[in-house]
Amino acid sequence: MIQDRIKQLRALMAERKIDVYYIPNEDDHLSDEYTADYFKCKSYMSGFSGEAGCTIITKDFAGLWTDGRFFTQAENELQGTGVTLMRLRQEGVPNPIDFLIANTPKNGVLGFDGAVVSARNYLHLTQALKEKNAKLYTTEDLVGMVWGKERPTMPTEELYVLPKKYTGEEASERIARTREAMKASNCDAILLTALEDPCWLLNIRGNDIACTPVSYAFAVITNKKLYYYVDAKKINAKVAQYFKDNKVTVRPYNALMKDLQKLEGKKIWGDMGHLNSNLYKALAGNEIYDAISPVAYFRAIKNKTEIKNIRNAHVKDAVAMVKFIYWVKNTVGKGKMTEVTAQDHLYALRAEQKNYIEPSFETICAYQENAAMMHYTATEEKHAAVKARGFLLVDSGGTYKDGTTDITRTIALGGLTAEEKKLYTKVLKGHLDLLHAKFLYGTTGNNLDILARNPLWNDCIDYQCGTGHGVGHVLAVHEGPHGIRWGMPANGKAVILQEGMVVTDEPGVYLPHKLGIRIENEMIVQKEEKNFYGQFLSFEDITYVPYDRDAIDTQYLSDEEIDWINAYHKMIWEKIGPLLSGKEKSFLKKATGKITRA
Amino acid sequence: MIQDRIKQLRALMAERKIDVYYIPNEDDHLSDEYTADYFKCKSYMSGFSGEAGCTIITKDFAGLWTDGRFFTQAENELQGTGVTLMRLRQEGVPNPIDFLIANTPKNGVLGFDGAVVSARNYLHLTQALKEKNAKLYTTEDLVGMVWGKERPTMPTEELYVLPKKYTGEEASERIARTREAMKASNCDAILLTALEDPCWLLNIRGNDIACTPVSYAFAVITNKKLYYYVDAKKINAKVAQYFKDNKVTVRPYNALMKDLQKLEGKKIWGDMGHLNSNLYKALAGNEIYDAISPVAYFRAIKNKTEIKNIRNAHVKDAVAMVKFIYWVKNTVGKGKMTEVTAQDHLYALRAEQKNYIEPSFETICAYQENAAMMHYTATEEKHAAVKARGFLLVDSGGTYKDGTTDITRTIALGGLTAEEKKLYTKVLKGHLDLLHAKFLYGTTGNNLDILARNPLWNDCIDYQCGTGHGVGHVLAVHEGPHGIRWGMPANGKAVILQEGMVVTDEPGVYLPHKLGIRIENEMIVQKEEKNFYGQFLSFEDITYVPYDRDAIDTQYLSDEEIDWINAYHKMIWEKIGPLLSGKEKSFLKKATGKITRA
Repeated sequence: MIQDRIKQLRALMAERKIDVYYIPNEDDHLSDEYTADYFKCKSYMSGFSGEAGCTIITKDFAGLWTDGRFFTQAENELQGTGVTLMRLRQEGVPNPIDFLIANTPKNGVLGFDGAVVSARNYLHLTQALKEKNAKLYTTEDLVGMVWGKERPTMPTEELYVLPKKYTGEEASERIARTREAMKASNCDAILLTALEDPCWLLNIRGNDIACTPVSYAFAVITNKKLYYYVDAKKINAKVAQYFKDNKVTVRPYNALMKDLQKLEGKKIWGDMGHLNSNLYKALAGNEIYDAISPVAYFRAIKNKTEIKNIRNAHVKDAVAMVKFIYWVKNTVGKGKMTEVTAQDHLYALRAEQKNYIEPSFETICAYQENAAMMHYTATEEKHAAVKARGFLLVDSGGTYKDGTTDITRTIALGGLTAEEKKLYTKVLKGHLDLLHAKFLYGTTGNNLDILARNPLWNDCIDYQCGTGHGVGHVLAVHEGPHGIRWGMPANGKAVILQEGMVVTDEPGVYLPHKLGIRIENEMIVQKEEKNFYGQFLSFEDITYVPYDRDAIDTQYLSDEEIDWINAYHKMIWEKIGPLLSGKEKSFLKKATGKITRA
Repeated sequence: MIQDRIKQLRALMAERKIDVYYIPNEDDHLSDEYTADYFKCKSYMSGFSGEAGCTIITKDFAGLWTDGRFFTQAENELQGTGVTLMRLRQEGVPNPIDFLIANTPKNGVLGFDGAVVSARNYLHLTQALKEKNAKLYTTEDLVGMVWGKERPTMPTEELYVLPKKYTGEEASERIARTREAMKASNCDAILLTALEDPCWLLNIRGNDIACTPVSYAFAVITNKKLYYYVDAKKINAKVAQYFKDNKVTVRPYNALMKDLQKLEGKKIWGDMGHLNSNLYKALAGNEIYDAISPVAYFRAIKNKTEIKNIRNAHVKDAVAMVKFIYWVKNTVGKGKMTEVTAQDHLYALRAEQKNYIEPSFETICAYQENAAMMHYTATEEKHAAVKARGFLLVDSGGTYKDGTTDITRTIALGGLTAEEKKLYTKVLKGHLDLLHAKFLYGTTGNNLDILARNPLWNDCIDYQCGTGHGVGHVLAVHEGPHGIRWGMPANGKAVILQEGMVVTDEPGVYLPHKLGIRIENEMIVQKEEKNFYGQFLSFEDITYVPYDRDAIDTQYLSDEEIDWINAYHKMIWEKIGPLLSGKEKSFLKKATGKITRA
């Protein structure tokens, strides 16, 4: 099937004299993780379903690039397709952009759909191919032509308004703030391309993408006007009135390019990393102010209402999670439990919670060695039975009208070895050391990452991914611009952590074919004392689910770390205990009981 | 006196219609710390003798900029001069370059000696003044004209060869490596301007600057030739023969500018941060490849011979330091001890060691509240008596033919309060946590800094400076390009730590008017295991002087940290004990005895 698709694509390439065809993971907003099915060209052309990577087809080579989180999954899914797995960041593996440049011959042609490649990459490729006198062909979507009538349509789910009681700020105030940033940078307009930006700005949400309440739409803000480009089918009467009240001019989704072509001599704020190359070309004749959109910074810093609501979402989430953990511990080994029945049970428990919308991402429910794959997904076709030995790693979250949650607990199922307990405790140690850090204003996640990683690095173990990511408010569960990681961002600029930012703390251990352990809480940056040295900050812990005392070996913890756990568990008992009853309540009582040295 | 100098300078400025005159700290090689007295224009014009900052004179304002390490010293020295202290990085204080731009009027003139300002700053100022139609005047050294015959002459100390048994590599090999880097970057020549670079390259040393065995000289390397620009007086017969053997063409120091003017259409490697603006202008018509010189990277990574020699230098240094600490502890409160008598005693003890050349920097010997000034210098005129209470902070080092040392010990003199012990132990805790880190290849000092700072930040205390710096091999005690600090370098690029790099670990606490505590060891980056995750690295500790057990309060340390101290002290006893005798040996035995929890 895949081989046949590649054959058809090669025929189209040959007609157009294209030597190399690039099929990235992104949609026309350059979302780099979750996209509508319409945009899953990379998967359609390779068979690999993971949400990161890209496919490249030449006359005699088909390759799928993806990163370490997906190697095992890709190995399985690529079997029999003839597509070669290119392991990103492994020694000797070129990154895909370099591969494109190297494999486009002199006087040759490199092709891709200009709508799904960023202006930044477009310019970089244009420049690099100049020396070879090679050309770009970006005006047709060849994969779409192969896909034909089988291709899913663009989603048209209804929009809805998220009221001020959830967002804490009217759309008009958010628009005003954005216009101020625009003026401060002497721009005539801001083009918002990232899917989350117009949602946050206008306090609206959609349902176009699984697990992320966004809608395919662009926004253009000028001094006096605000244009919202969206499929009109998505707007019901209530939303239409809301847009009218907020002076939002609705335009057809596909009208954006033509509207942009009419502009001339303007200075326009556009993030070249999230601006697709077709829109970029439409803006020829204008100056582009290339910077992360001000909205991306605004939405990263949660206001007091959002914070109150987010805490509330986490309380509900904790109720579901504690019930789930109780169920797992008391069912495993008795009836038949699989990764799929377990994750279905958790979905159901979250769905019982008030104002629940949907999962905030696809649950990772992975038993023992499956958990070594960081982004494992159990399916009806392929999953493991959960037995009363080892660990069950569960990374999950919910989108509620109050907020978005993301939590990982690794549940001890029984018969843990000393080595397994040691690894769990080392992960916990790093998690705690980061959670309890105080730091001066000016600190970035790049400075703090080592606090979580240190206990594992000291045993020469690494978790090969970042330690933490921002979390949206009723938006994408992964959001920037900040994060906690040790490698510098590509632009060399780590973002300063500021009061009100939400970030996760999720170190782990992943031993291939053996086990996976991850512990993840969400935290909000808060102010500590301001003194002679400056403003100190720290983290408020907003995840209210106990660590697993059955997996903790206190010999690897300091007295202070044990005190932190006990204080945390006491807080959980006081906050979540009253919301439970019967055996679930007794379970929490026990699970949050005081830990002492053996 | 200062006021009179400023008056004369203003007269010269008026004749030339100069509105603002900028007098930086640097010499014509842009050394940013230690320079020959000839270059101390900033101090001559302000009265401030510290080794960082700059002086700026306008028609009606005279300002001295310096950083937090020097505030108290500057306050004292500027009294009665009419020069205003501008506290760098304090709220509301503009940085000097911004001040120059803001205070040069429209159509006005900004002046400075082009030899002591970097090409980078020159270009930045040129660009910034364009909008105002203001001009630069850089062809005369006005401070030199005021200084006149009183000005110290340029030093002419003899050069000497540092043999291969110390450096581990012939000059010819070092030149070959540099030429390879030159070719890899397609350059026709490399211009070495930093004082340390030609010394390292040619295995020669000089004596032009106090505490740093370098010589005022430039080098130009082409494919076939190596030109060394130096005052011929410095070359004795032996060195002349050595240069001949190594095909080094000696040229007069002042001939460089004219020689550069003859070049055209070449691509020349020059670090715009260490290339002065006069030389930059001489290179007009050539392409400048602006990057840190390859020699700066080469010399940061010590070879096996250098490492063996550096360890040996530290053994000798430890013998001097242990004798000194014994003497301090057993003399204080009995005879009269001052900061000056103590530092003189230490100078004498180091001078007894084999192959000792000179101090590697001016000793900081500071009693109690004086130690709150990070770069305090006790003088005959102004110093404190050392009493049998509190702390004596001693930051010192030696340059030996084997290597350069830098160590700080804070010595408990008696009667420590619980708070003082707590602070000492928190500093020690951070120092130990950094020293014992393991880290993956790719880690920078920016990632690791928090390990040392964390125990203090958790008490909302900061030490307001970096945690560690590189150390030269029989060269400058402070050298780049790496370091351990939490703020990013100005160019946004932290340098990866590599096997063979030497770096210090020196957290501290500085409570103004109260006390100062610093603990500093030198470390060498070494390889640990290489596994599935990559190459792990760690630090070898090469300072062999015990911490002060009289100041340690074990309640603030983990069991692991106590074990580290005991293992370290045991190693010191085994290595240094046999080199001592009598009471000094007994003292070390006691000082390195096992520490247990109270």
